[in-house]
Amino acid sequence: MEPHVVVIGAGFGGLNAAKALARRPVRVTVLDRHNYHLFQPLLYQVATATLSPGDVASPIRWILRGAPNVRVLLGEAVSVDTAGRRVRLEDGSLLDYDFLIVATGSSHTYFGNDQWAPCAPGLKTLEDALEIRRRILLAFERAERETDQARRQELLTFVLVGGGPTGVELAGTLGEIARQTLRHEFRSIDPRRARIVLVEAGPAILPSFPRNLREAARTALHRLGVDVREGTAVTAIDQHGVTLGRERLAAGTVLWTAGVTASPLVRTLGAPLDRPGRVVVAPDLSVPGHPEVFVVGDAAAVLDRHGRPLPGVAPVAIQQARHAARTVLNRLRGRPGAAFVYRDKGNLAIIGRGAAIADLGWIRFSGVFAWLFWLFLHIVELIGFRSRLVVLVQWAVAYVTFQRSVRLITNVGRSDRSEPS
Amino acid sequence: MEPHVVVIGAGFGGLNAAKALARRPVRVTVLDRHNYHLFQPLLYQVATATLSPGDVASPIRWILRGAPNVRVLLGEAVSVDTAGRRVRLEDGSLLDYDFLIVATGSSHTYFGNDQWAPCAPGLKTLEDALEIRRRILLAFERAERETDQARRQELLTFVLVGGGPTGVELAGTLGEIARQTLRHEFRSIDPRRARIVLVEAGPAILPSFPRNLREAARTALHRLGVDVREGTAVTAIDQHGVTLGRERLAAGTVLWTAGVTASPLVRTLGAPLDRPGRVVVAPDLSVPGHPEVFVVGDAAAVLDRHGRPLPGVAPVAIQQARHAARTVLNRLRGRPGAAFVYRDKGNLAIIGRGAAIADLGWIRFSGVFAWLFWLFLHIVELIGFRSRLVVLVQWAVAYVTFQRSVRLITNVGRSDRSEPS
Repeated sequence: MEPHVVVIGAGFGGLNAAKALARRPVRVTVLDRHNYHLFQPLLYQVATATLSPGDVASPIRWILRGAPNVRVLLGEAVSVDTAGRRVRLEDGSLLDYDFLIVATGSSHTYFGNDQWAPCAPGLKTLEDALEIRRRILLAFERAERETDQARRQELLTFVLVGGGPTGVELAGTLGEIARQTLRHEFRSIDPRRARIVLVEAGPAILPSFPRNLREAARTALHRLGVDVREGTAVTAIDQHGVTLGRERLAAGTVLWTAGVTASPLVRTLGAPLDRPGRVVVAPDLSVPGHPEVFVVGDAAAVLDRHGRPLPGVAPVAIQQARHAARTVLNRLRGRPGAAFVYRDKGNLAIIGRGAAIADLGWIRFSGVFAWLFWLFLHIVELIGFRSRLVVLVQWAVAYVTFQRSVRLITNVGRSDRSEPS
Repeated sequence: MEPHVVVIGAGFGGLNAAKALARRPVRVTVLDRHNYHLFQPLLYQVATATLSPGDVASPIRWILRGAPNVRVLLGEAVSVDTAGRRVRLEDGSLLDYDFLIVATGSSHTYFGNDQWAPCAPGLKTLEDALEIRRRILLAFERAERETDQARRQELLTFVLVGGGPTGVELAGTLGEIARQTLRHEFRSIDPRRARIVLVEAGPAILPSFPRNLREAARTALHRLGVDVREGTAVTAIDQHGVTLGRERLAAGTVLWTAGVTASPLVRTLGAPLDRPGRVVVAPDLSVPGHPEVFVVGDAAAVLDRHGRPLPGVAPVAIQQARHAARTVLNRLRGRPGAAFVYRDKGNLAIIGRGAAIADLGWIRFSGVFAWLFWLFLHIVELIGFRSRLVVLVQWAVAYVTFQRSVRLITNVGRSDRSEPS
């Protein structure tokens, strides 16, 4: 029987590992706890009611349907027995492997303040996005019914903790929702009076970008009415707002986009981890002492040639996954593995309609051009023909009409009530 | 101040009442426990992964944004004080009215067997549709992981209780999913071996249609592999299947489309109710003794000229809502209200791709023509420009490729796990 490669996780890493192994002389099993691949870069658009969950997610089986040597299993890996070469699933069953590619990604962390989680949800999963959408829309609905002025302004205040790309995207889009989308729909409140505060503990938002592009992003955010607070640490969060050192900010909605930590599964590999919990892998991305086990994407700590860790973005995960798959096939042919080298094609961030920044190394630009470039790249990359077409239509309509059509407050839990208060 | 009309519910009835009162000399408040209007006739397509929730729902505020005299409130009415002319909301607040239009619709009923509810969800809300989608998709996923043959066949058996239009739609679409959509995606099971059973306690499915059209529907269902059991009552349901008199049917998924009952709010009106809990209204749709209170849609019991109750379909609710709104405006001008007369434009049911039946009174037809007619009508009726366009694209892609793109098992509840077992 052909060697068995188990791939854990079907994000950008896992999916590309499986694709690189399709129709090759191996048996592949892709394990994921969801039945879909999530196109993370557009997840904030689900959270802000522009896209539906189905527009940013495709069934893993469907993506891999053409590869007869690839099997897809819905299930969750709870631990890896590297000595016995097997993965334990949530129901206790075991999956033997000859090679293992771990691509389980990361989740958000509250840096030891887990009590903040219910007050300030993060954005990693589809469920997170729907919960954030629900909170944003409910805040305006409750403000419309509220008669107390102070409480109304609290409901109309939104705080985003963390000035990375996700925080900037969410802040910009929230500005658009308040100023454009909802403008004519309320009778007691003026949605344009909503206050949006982006808080960054470090000295500047978007730290991975050069100074002039950061400045362009700041200007675009101000134009959307976003209050940007840099060098400001959040010291407490509760359900009525945040504390910033000595200042208290009453806010009905707080969103968390500040920190990530590697998936807990990698702790069971018995390999050295860095501070955010990522596996410190060998140059060929294998686990030290286990040449048959690879870690790729957000769960791996890999340094660039300047000694800085590679960012947790899709291109890194995709290139690493292809490298790991190639190394597996080389080993089977008795060839040695090579060291992984990241080809950085650039850095992009979107602020809102017509506003983005792009740093391609040889050229830096911002504004409408950067935004069109962002749009083009993301449509091309979106997996699945149908998604691409539908997303295009939806965006076209959204940008022409200022509408956000997926403004549904859907309830979580099997209940007929939408819990309006 | 202008008279205040409160409309409870923003389904087909409530929404059309509000539209008929827009820009008229009244103040209108529309109260709904959801922030969206749901296009019920396409809800089964959400349950069967063809459409996203956002494709069949539009924010009520957005639909009514152009009417400055209409206010939309997210909230739930818990009782009506007809003597004091006010509505009590879930938070205890009161809403005074001069006129009241109750359009709260219906929900499903288990005819006294409420213990069946967790084993056999019904299809009324978006949450219901997502739960049904989740169960259908999880059944195939679990079957793929299952090694025991009997248990695997149980997981691949789907029972639909109730042979009305919804049961027929779901059964037909499930047949397509098993035979077409999932055909190439599993490695351990053959989805085409799924068993779909449609159980109807009455003598025939689709009882509101003439005999020859029912026969056409039966033939179309058989072609899709659906086992139709008429004159068969379900006597028990548990999580491993159903009992049909002496026969036991092991089934992993049971769906309930059998019975409806009027919304409980109407019990607080103090008016006479019929057996399914609907208000027996006066000929002008007002509540006997309260000419300022109207009940329209599924919550009202209105007889046609043959003495049979009007069906719980959108055209009835829409026509009644317009009639009630007209009567309110007439009363304000001192004119008397007229009796409501339903204009029946026909009866349609869809079985699957290219298969439907249509009874327009003067003509009856089935097959591809009836299906195209159904498609045309539903696209035209879908509220909101964007939905229409996106749904069209999605259907076009779905019908060309046999794909169902919204096959996401999303979790209910804020959790990162999709509960695979």
